[in-house]
Amino acid sequence: LKKVLESGELTQDLEKRLFELASVAKTRSYSPYSKFRVGAAVLAKSGNIWLGCNVESASYGATRCAEQTAFLKAVSDGDNRFIAVGVTTDTDAYISPCGICRQFMVEWGKELLVYNFKPDGSFRKYKLKDLLPDSFGPDDLDRPREGI
Amino acid sequence: LKKVLESGELTQDLEKRLFELASVAKTRSYSPYSKFRVGAAVLAKSGNIWLGCNVESASYGATRCAEQTAFLKAVSDGDNRFIAVGVTTDTDAYISPCGICRQFMVEWGKELLVYNFKPDGSFRKYKLKDLLPDSFGPDDLDRPREGI
Amino acid sequence: LKKVLESGELTQDLEKRLFELASVAKTRSYSPYSKFRVGAAVLAKSGNIWLGCNVESASYGATRCAEQTAFLKAVSDGDNRFIAVGVTTDTDAYISPCGICRQFMVEWGKELLVYNFKPDGSFRKYKLKDLLPDSFGPDDLDRPREGI
Amino acid sequence: LKKVLESGELTQDLEKRLFELASVAKTRSYSPYSKFRVGAAVLAKSGNIWLGCNVESASYGATRCAEQTAFLKAVSDGDNRFIAVGVTTDTDAYISPCGICRQFMVEWGKELLVYNFKPDGSFRKYKLKDLLPDSFGPDDLDRPREGI
Ligand SMILES: [Zn+2]
Ligand SMILES: [Zn+2]
Ligand SMILES: [Zn+2]
Ligand SMILES: [Zn+2]
Repeated sequence: LKKVLESGELTQDLEKRLFELASVAKTRSYSPYSKFRVGAAVLAKSGNIWLGCNVESASYGATRCAEQTAFLKAVSDGDNRFIAVGVTTDTDAYISPCGICRQFMVEWGKELLVYNFKPDGSFRKYKLKDLLPDSFGPDDLDRPREGI
Repeated sequence: LKKVLESGELTQDLEKRLFELASVAKTRSYSPYSKFRVGAAVLAKSGNIWLGCNVESASYGATRCAEQTAFLKAVSDGDNRFIAVGVTTDTDAYISPCGICRQFMVEWGKELLVYNFKPDGSFRKYKLKDLLPDSFGPDDLDRPREGI
Repeated sequence: LKKVLESGELTQDLEKRLFELASVAKTRSYSPYSKFRVGAAVLAKSGNIWLGCNVESASYGATRCAEQTAFLKAVSDGDNRFIAVGVTTDTDAYISPCGICRQFMVEWGKELLVYNFKPDGSFRKYKLKDLLPDSFGPDDLDRPREGI
Repeated sequence: LKKVLESGELTQDLEKRLFELASVAKTRSYSPYSKFRVGAAVLAKSGNIWLGCNVESASYGATRCAEQTAFLKAVSDGDNRFIAVGVTTDTDAYISPCGICRQFMVEWGKELLVYNFKPDGSFRKYKLKDLLPDSFGPDDLDRPREGI
């Protein structure tokens, strides 16, 4: 992990582990409405890996994504410095986090590595800042306001 | 726990434990915007108790409540039959789950016991069905549609 | 309208109008995922009636309900004192606002009349405070906090 | 407007109008919690310009952004092909739509022009596809699923 923290890159072993755990997480998906299962695994600087799945609601607006679930687990357990998140679905495509999740995750930094895994383990890799460029973030709320 | 499951009521010991764990969960709150800390603890039929705190976002709409966090933890770990949820804040009042959380939780049944704990441990108790009467739920989406 | 404002009750004519306009609003629903069309009409104290439909998102969590749409229209046009909201769907049932909408609407008062209309115009009538008892609201955020 | 539709670019006059209307929309903001006022104006291919402001909720998760309000107005009135959206706040910065809004808006196409206006009318301009690269969208939900 030390090497990972220094280089800012995951080892192949860790990438494989992230994929496997995201795939496990996917099996717990509660998605009776979309039938679209998503799993996520988040690697924290502590070395912990947190799993999450999407959890849907009959009122669609209360649906929570896999990435949010994984981050909520970590943060609510006091683990809040992150290295990488991996996401996987049942489709043969590199499915990327939705905009809600990108916004939700940016709260903890823009350098996060984001892996979009196909079910076969192949992936595309991003940094969160590239998925949510010129993001709206915590700093913006602190800016001085004009005329009010 | 067997007695609890049969009677549908918590013992005083369990109520106390739910309060204590919700209070622990509260200390992990990430609420830089509202400064309003909330903790939740969910007792599942498995006997597990899951903790959650509120986690806010600079884009307020991505804020997730303590109850959602606790339920997401449970569901994403395969635990999805629930007995009771306890909620507590830093205010000397019986703060009740918001409507989003009531809707989110109703996905797993309306008989859920809901405890609103003051910081001193005193509480008000409800059933979820009384907090969200005539709820919109999973069944509604399955109803036949007219004229389309 | 004066009589309505004094009595706190709608006339039969107004109830019929609310139903008809909610039905019109329903035809504009953007609901490719659920195929569950919802229409809402909100009567403001100004006499205006604002129409809204549900608008869904591929990321289900960004889905917005008909009631939210109608209220957003009103509030963003400076109209923010409300008498009644009517909701209708394509199902032969009295479909009630979801918990998210109840929470969203409570921001403007608990005395709001809520009509759940079947497609034939028959209805059930509530007050919002009865659909979201012991609600979490604006006042709660202003309460003094203990120990922080 | 014909020229605009052909070139895919706004005239300076239209840009100025978008800014002015977003500024008007901002004055209707309901933001008692963040005190962060946001206004949006959406130009549709019909020639209509729709105004929206942010509308907050005591339960932060039910907060709706200015861009969502403006799009909801348009869509619920049957206007659903868009050219450009302009956003403005009270801060001396080019504030960009949050991830939720980027996701919400992508439902109607990625070529949308996005203007982030400072209060003095100066702006940065994007295409939505550049603000939400590799977006999760309607097509993804239609992909074939493996193994289920
Ligand atoms: Zn997401
Ligand atoms: Zn809540
Ligand atoms: Zn709703
Ligand atoms: Zn937004």
